Amino acid sequence: MQRQHHYTLSASCPDRVGIVAKVASFLAEHGGWILETAHHADNEEGRYFMRIEVKADSLPFMLSEFRERFRPIGEALEMRWKITDSAVKKRLVILVSKQEHCLYDLLSRWQSKELDVEIPCVISNHEDFRGFVEWHGIPFHHVPVTRDNKEQAFAEIHRIYEEVSGDTMVLARYMQILPPDLCSAFPGQILNIHHSFLPSFVGAKPYHQAYARGVKLIGATCHYVTPDLDQGPIIDQDVIRVDHSDTPDDLVRYGKDIEKTVLARSLRYHLEDRVIVHGNKTVVFR
Amino acid sequence: MQRQHHYTLSASCPDRVGIVAKVASFLAEHGGWILETAHHADNEEGRYFMRIEVKADSLPFMLSEFRERFRPIGEALEMRWKITDSAVKKRLVILVSKQEHCLYDLLSRWQSKELDVEIPCVISNHEDFRGFVEWHGIPFHHVPVTRDNKEQAFAEIHRIYEEVSGDTMVLARYMQILPPDLCSAFPGQILNIHHSFLPSFVGAKPYHQAYARGVKLIGATCHYVTPDLDQGPIIDQDVIRVDHSDTPDDLVRYGKDIEKTVLARSLRYHLEDRVIVHGNKTVVFR
Amino acid sequence: MQRQHHYTLSASCPDRVGIVAKVASFLAEHGGWILETAHHADNEEGRYFMRIEVKADSLPFMLSEFRERFRPIGEALEMRWKITDSAVKKRLVILVSKQEHCLYDLLSRWQSKELDVEIPCVISNHEDFRGFVEWHGIPFHHVPVTRDNKEQAFAEIHRIYEEVSGDTMVLARYMQILPPDLCSAFPGQILNIHHSFLPSFVGAKPYHQAYARGVKLIGATCHYVTPDLDQGPIIDQDVIRVDHSDTPDDLVRYGKDIEKTVLARSLRYHLEDRVIVHGNKTVVFR
Amino acid sequence: MQRQHHYTLSASCPDRVGIVAKVASFLAEHGGWILETAHHADNEEGRYFMRIEVKADSLPFMLSEFRERFRPIGEALEMRWKITDSAVKKRLVILVSKQEHCLYDLLSRWQSKELDVEIPCVISNHEDFRGFVEWHGIPFHHVPVTRDNKEQAFAEIHRIYEEVSGDTMVLARYMQILPPDLCSAFPGQILNIHHSFLPSFVGAKPYHQAYARGVKLIGATCHYVTPDLDQGPIIDQDVIRVDHSDTPDDLVRYGKDIEKTVLARSLRYHLEDRVIVHGNKTVVFR
Repeated sequence: MQRQHHYTLSASCPDRVGIVAKVASFLAEHGGWILETAHHADNEEGRYFMRIEVKADSLPFMLSEFRERFRPIGEALEMRWKITDSAVKKRLVILVSKQEHCLYDLLSRWQSKELDVEIPCVISNHEDFRGFVEWHGIPFHHVPVTRDNKEQAFAEIHRIYEEVSGDTMVLARYMQILPPDLCSAFPGQILNIHHSFLPSFVGAKPYHQAYARGVKLIGATCHYVTPDLDQGPIIDQDVIRVDHSDTPDDLVRYGKDIEKTVLARSLRYHLEDRVIVHGNKTVVFR
Repeated sequence: MQRQHHYTLSASCPDRVGIVAKVASFLAEHGGWILETAHHADNEEGRYFMRIEVKADSLPFMLSEFRERFRPIGEALEMRWKITDSAVKKRLVILVSKQEHCLYDLLSRWQSKELDVEIPCVISNHEDFRGFVEWHGIPFHHVPVTRDNKEQAFAEIHRIYEEVSGDTMVLARYMQILPPDLCSAFPGQILNIHHSFLPSFVGAKPYHQAYARGVKLIGATCHYVTPDLDQGPIIDQDVIRVDHSDTPDDLVRYGKDIEKTVLARSLRYHLEDRVIVHGNKTVVFR
Repeated sequence: MQRQHHYTLSASCPDRVGIVAKVASFLAEHGGWILETAHHADNEEGRYFMRIEVKADSLPFMLSEFRERFRPIGEALEMRWKITDSAVKKRLVILVSKQEHCLYDLLSRWQSKELDVEIPCVISNHEDFRGFVEWHGIPFHHVPVTRDNKEQAFAEIHRIYEEVSGDTMVLARYMQILPPDLCSAFPGQILNIHHSFLPSFVGAKPYHQAYARGVKLIGATCHYVTPDLDQGPIIDQDVIRVDHSDTPDDLVRYGKDIEKTVLARSLRYHLEDRVIVHGNKTVVFR
Repeated sequence: MQRQHHYTLSASCPDRVGIVAKVASFLAEHGGWILETAHHADNEEGRYFMRIEVKADSLPFMLSEFRERFRPIGEALEMRWKITDSAVKKRLVILVSKQEHCLYDLLSRWQSKELDVEIPCVISNHEDFRGFVEWHGIPFHHVPVTRDNKEQAFAEIHRIYEEVSGDTMVLARYMQILPPDLCSAFPGQILNIHHSFLPSFVGAKPYHQAYARGVKLIGATCHYVTPDLDQGPIIDQDVIRVDHSDTPDDLVRYGKDIEKTVLARSLRYHLEDRVIVHGNKTVVFR
């Protein structure tokens, strides 16, 4: 199930004639074999987005030289771009509280290598999942969060994340609100799964809000965390049908199934560099 | 495709021991053959809801006598109840503006008798669909609505609805807001299809709101009209997946497909007396 | 999230006037408080199906006496019926091979008590999941299956299942075909999750069959196991969208998500006595 | 809702280094502004697929000259390619029998210009929809098909299709099987909507087959017609949930809703040159 070794170039720039030609010609000149490519022209904003996977061993140089050689093209096109190497695994730090479903789901995918990342540690404000996490050979950090220690607690989380060289943080139904400075420190790196179909039911107890309104579908939303609570760029969403016979507890139970699915799907898009954030929206090259 | 002639009893009452026994025994005593039955106990509110279809010719009396005989049971149980006759077609008045999709869809279903109602007339604030409606043999009333004539226009609509003995009004993407007194005059009779997944994106231009927020699913909601705009009891909802490549025009186009489907489905539930309104929520016995 | 203590009566019988009246009156006479009830009349087959949840402490007697007292009614109506006690947990035996997703999903739900059963053991033809299962405090039996030892292996599984008083067996992507005698020994007790939208793609490698045919949706089906491979009564199914860019490996990966969801949902229906098998079909009172 | 004037190049060729570079450079040299582009590399078959929309007025020449100039590139890449002009409307001939839903749906979309084609005529083996079709200003041809006149009838349909210069034929629940020679005459031009989730339930009365098997979802499939009944390349599919309470008539009714939706969606892909047939499968650039 392993994909072959490849580089992924993702980029956006002001739209104009010749972008694809320039980039594709650069690749072709060096023998770059394109495995997958996706493009999007936002005609309203006049901006072009692209994502290209190139077979690694088709190129005669390494990533560092690629970056060197591609720089002038990027500059000429006023491009924001990055290129990543599928052989370098991303480093995912999971934050969790007392709900098990997202954690089990992520570790299930990690155990089978479907989720092909390093997990340097799991951090929780409770001890509940220490044994489960450690059984998988993953370090577990208990960082309690109380009314009084918030500043220190999040400083500690910040410290651990940097210490383990995390590059992606997932709030897997982590029931604490990250402080604005932590959110701002890692833009486009922190994914949250919110248990409603945003923008409906922002904030606390969304399933109870949904029950009170009598909606016939409930949802879950995965978004990048920004300092504005539940307002960050949406990566993916999904819904499930409910009816009058479902209690708030039933909604919570149904919701868990879509939460874990939406989170896993969004995380995959993120890890494969399929998501480009632009303003408060995302381009997702599935 | 015609179902056999039946009566539909729908009811709600405070929950207690013996409700089903009393109602079912009454039916059994008179030979009533149950075709379909559904129940719901709302344990939070302590209220019981039921819907029973009885084969008409299994009973030795007509509806008027049924009502007479059932009254004491209803009173003993403090029941709100009604019974309807499948042989008496409901009378549906459709209000439409310039968008065609819901109107075509409803008349398509009506033409094939899937939608088994009388349509005494279609009312519109534009002339566009006169020919199409009249070709189906249905009278068409043009009631223009301007900034200045609103009061008279809606009085006229009110008058027509009563004159044709309408018992269900459908706002099939009718782009005018009904005045509160009209909404209040016919509670539980007026269905609206709103082009968003309520409670997201209340009010005008929901697809543009959805585009601006960058959601990954858009929706439609059918609800009973109340004096509070887009706040009435929800009958049904649905969503469809969109992505970054979809413009607001694309969202409008996708949305039409779910609007017409959700409206048709909700209308069917309504016409078959499957919907019981309770507070601002609905019990829908599908 | 715990439901209150209740009894669940599920039954089917030839359809006739007075079934509901008789059953409901019996309950009402003894003060039985109905929590939930669902009915289905199959007009083609002339058969009536019902499921009633009664609050346990509303009745003045225990289940044994209930059975005694209800027997004459069941006989008069030629009913097949059973009544179960929510306080008596079902005993679930899980069979698994090398794929982790269904096992993780089931144990995740069990760990959080959403799946409210006893799991006396997990049986596998491989050792892979011993540690994971045992960490949950659940005994693990390794019963290897080879070309030559099939008879003994399945006899051993049969023996273990009886020894631990199993009443439900789940094949959680167990990659061996149960012998007909084992299937026949426990009708309506063994659930399998098949990785296709049956009746499409019966047998081996359904995702590869789906890829070859170029379908645009793939599915999963949970059914009761019968001696006819993949032909048993279907409990639930679901699908997920795929497209031309998905390889067979992608289909396998997508499929895992619906397999575990459909299995968990079907198992829940089964455990709550919501499924009544009739011929090769099921009535599922969701 | 009108898209700007553009050309659509769709192509496939053996995969190799430099395809995108060659094509994009050709466009860029002539000032071609790319509105939308999509690519697919089938690594198993070693074949590359692409679709590019170019703003028409960004190019200094017309389509005829484009074709002339692009030919050497196409030849060098061993490409199968075509380019179409969004200003030249496709010519769609609809075949229908007695079921109304797909016809109403298509004409609804055509009336609002969402379906932006010429419909030179509708052909039916029954007179039922003459008035409806003619009210839209579209010619209607009644070509009865009996056991004895099949050869002449289909010759007549063939003749009409060519006479009106049709380039797309839609079987909108047309209840006759086209003869192999007609299917072969217009490969990739004839779309059929089959009322099952193929490959399940090939042939007649699929909803009754689905009912008998007790499936929990029913489906519809739009595919190109080939001489092998219901075996052609699948363009799109969808499903809808059903349960034990649904009769075969209910399945027929639910099915109509997905049939018309899947047909409309597939037709749109086809008309916008988003479908590339390869072997018995399709690449669909949505």
